[in-house]
Amino acid sequence: MSADKIPYKIYLSEDEVPKAWYNLRADMKNKPAPLLNPGTGKPLTAEELSPIFCEELVAQELDETTPFIEIPEDIRNFYRMYRPAPLVRAYCLEEKLQTPAKIYYKFEGNNTSGSHKLNSAIAQAYYAKKQGLKGVTTETGAGQWGTALSMACSYFDLDCKVYMVKVSYEQKPFRREVMRTYGASVVPSPSETTEVGKKILAEHPGTTGSLGCAISEAVEVATKNPGYRYVLGSVLNQVLLHQSVIGLETKTALDKYGIKPDIIIGCAGGGSNLGGLIAPFMGEKLRGEADYRIIAVEPASCPSFTRGTFAYDFCDTGMICPLAKMYTLGSSFIPSANHAGGLRFHGMSTTLSQLYHDGFMEATSVEQTSVFEAAEQFARIEGILPAPESSHAIRVAIDEALKCKETGEEKTIVFGLTGTGYFDLVAYQKYNDGEMDDVIPTDEDIAASVAKLPRVNA
Amino acid sequence: MSADKIPYKIYLSEDEVPKAWYNLRADMKNKPAPLLNPGTGKPLTAEELSPIFCEELVAQELDETTPFIEIPEDIRNFYRMYRPAPLVRAYCLEEKLQTPAKIYYKFEGNNTSGSHKLNSAIAQAYYAKKQGLKGVTTETGAGQWGTALSMACSYFDLDCKVYMVKVSYEQKPFRREVMRTYGASVVPSPSETTEVGKKILAEHPGTTGSLGCAISEAVEVATKNPGYRYVLGSVLNQVLLHQSVIGLETKTALDKYGIKPDIIIGCAGGGSNLGGLIAPFMGEKLRGEADYRIIAVEPASCPSFTRGTFAYDFCDTGMICPLAKMYTLGSSFIPSANHAGGLRFHGMSTTLSQLYHDGFMEATSVEQTSVFEAAEQFARIEGILPAPESSHAIRVAIDEALKCKETGEEKTIVFGLTGTGYFDLVAYQKYNDGEMDDVIPTDEDIAASVAKLPRVNA
Repeated sequence: MSADKIPYKIYLSEDEVPKAWYNLRADMKNKPAPLLNPGTGKPLTAEELSPIFCEELVAQELDETTPFIEIPEDIRNFYRMYRPAPLVRAYCLEEKLQTPAKIYYKFEGNNTSGSHKLNSAIAQAYYAKKQGLKGVTTETGAGQWGTALSMACSYFDLDCKVYMVKVSYEQKPFRREVMRTYGASVVPSPSETTEVGKKILAEHPGTTGSLGCAISEAVEVATKNPGYRYVLGSVLNQVLLHQSVIGLETKTALDKYGIKPDIIIGCAGGGSNLGGLIAPFMGEKLRGEADYRIIAVEPASCPSFTRGTFAYDFCDTGMICPLAKMYTLGSSFIPSANHAGGLRFHGMSTTLSQLYHDGFMEATSVEQTSVFEAAEQFARIEGILPAPESSHAIRVAIDEALKCKETGEEKTIVFGLTGTGYFDLVAYQKYNDGEMDDVIPTDEDIAASVAKLPRVNA
Repeated sequence: MSADKIPYKIYLSEDEVPKAWYNLRADMKNKPAPLLNPGTGKPLTAEELSPIFCEELVAQELDETTPFIEIPEDIRNFYRMYRPAPLVRAYCLEEKLQTPAKIYYKFEGNNTSGSHKLNSAIAQAYYAKKQGLKGVTTETGAGQWGTALSMACSYFDLDCKVYMVKVSYEQKPFRREVMRTYGASVVPSPSETTEVGKKILAEHPGTTGSLGCAISEAVEVATKNPGYRYVLGSVLNQVLLHQSVIGLETKTALDKYGIKPDIIIGCAGGGSNLGGLIAPFMGEKLRGEADYRIIAVEPASCPSFTRGTFAYDFCDTGMICPLAKMYTLGSSFIPSANHAGGLRFHGMSTTLSQLYHDGFMEATSVEQTSVFEAAEQFARIEGILPAPESSHAIRVAIDEALKCKETGEEKTIVFGLTGTGYFDLVAYQKYNDGEMDDVIPTDEDIAASVAKLPRVNA
């Protein structure tokens, strides 16, 4: 098809939707460093991981060599309810910015969880069900992962216990109700329901919580209750694997019209969206078949790539999880209460960390007032109220498009619009009222938590 | 294409999206009765309507003969941002219900307004802009129309003043913030900002408002401020015209796969969704080309079709609007504070009223606890959290599918899923907590307000 007939939205047919996930690690020369047992300092085995995670998910977590893993039919049937997700040509935004750049976004918000999180939630619930489990536990920040998991568990009739970061629980009163409608129980974290929660509350009374705390609580509950396992919405290799469906669909849609992106942009908290979006493009880059500029965008309040250290660290605040080698601000780092709850994680996917370390991608950080400025602009022009998380990518996509305006370059920019902001109206209200501020950690803040990194790094 | 290959979602290509709206009245032998001037009792002329409505919209309102009216290019470009809307085959719901029925729904909720309302909002804003107006005023119930109009006005840089029914304003605190993000001002109605609002507050202190009150306030403000006109999200012929895009897309999608529906179901408040969904099907029925069972579903708390009177009445509580011949509970009827704000209107589209009166469609009413039961069931099975309004149609679609289960008939059921319930979590919470009740007006309640119908009926 010719490039001048590109529709506003490129939808794939059901036949074109991926039948297998793509495992980026298979194409990496430098594999991500293995997870370590914090007690022994040695790589974790499948046996050690099985009390925490479902068996098939453990296998996926440790598989560094299989490039494509088939998507089970039950999951593909569920995907059909909300996928394929559209790849949208942002004609209106291009016109408003008066840029020669061509802007595309992969929109993952057209489902009730409001984000891409459902892609992995349904996979993890499926494997839990297949293993005959009673239920799963998890943490949620912005609430999108928790909602996605509630929906997935409801579909497979599994019990679902969600620990929700307290600041998000309070900012998003209705998120809890969606999860309840799907049958989940939701607890604000840190809570008195776990040993680790009690400990964190004793040490930091009045804390607004963090993903790291909530993970500790959910893991504790999963390991103490027979028939339960813990599931995680980001960071892990298995999650990036499931999320590769985003990038695979994006690439198929672009290929249909012979479009080759110059720049690919994604927001990055734990890396689930970014890792999924870039997967097939990064694969080409790793195999030397193509080159792309790939940009991770993180909040200035929680800048793990741009100001963190590449080292082994705990994934959780309670230090009961495995050690992962990643860009980290230190597991004791508690970010300021910004409005992008999904990006408030101290660390980063080990896969993405290795790729960033090896120079295959860039990273940048942006402040939240400029993020909301971009969000409002985008909402008014493109008609979609974006999630604060997604708006980090919008900010940088607009900035890159404006650079093209200056230089006259007709670059093709693709970014991930991970979700909608319908549950983020408290944040929008603050922005509309001019009461939003930017809180950026000092070098001393970061140095203090990095100083507490585990000894295995020494 | 063969019927056994029907995908989960039927998307049209951009070429297949309608280029003209369909004006159902052109095919009606008995035209809807004309709007009357309440002072003279005579049919309103274009001159009399022009101080209230935009000129081109007045022309559309009065046009009973032109079957197809071209959709201007600017509107079609806007439609491309969120249309075509998918026609979904509810495979999961069919399986769960174990019904031989084939269920389809036209999903209009995948845009930030959360409903079909955007289809007419963008048209009305376009004509206001074309006429060189400064801005528009309107009322909103559930908040979906107000949000849609805010988005449309923001796109065309028009001022937008929204009077929001007080009960919805209080139940949906974040709706206001979405509208503000799109630059609109929002006032809870009845308010002290208008003469009619003051009068209603004096007569009914503590009222939770109604669409009828809010309309009166918005019309007053439009007519008193130069450069402003009033726009309405339902009831009017022009709105049904714009909403015909729903039915036209639905019919094209069904025709592509050779599917002929047996039953078409839509929720009905003022009739905007129902009138749009059924338009081309009703056209065939009127021309004797096909037959369909068409069912309007209304809330038991505001049952204009099933318990109202077919007579001339005011469209607003303040009695400053034109008189319309419709099924009405009386303009002084104030429905109980149920959770389907978009269906709390005392009257009904004149077009639909005439068709119902002439036996071309059925109507039924349902109670809100059974509506929320269907909503939760649908959310869990089909993965979309529906708006309470839309859930009225879900209730009846499920009931009809269960009848097919009893009889073994393989009927094809199509219903309109008008929107999402992301701003209706207060209602879902009440349902989840078992605190929802059904308030149904007594015969005396209805008789009292019907007794006050205007004298022109005598």
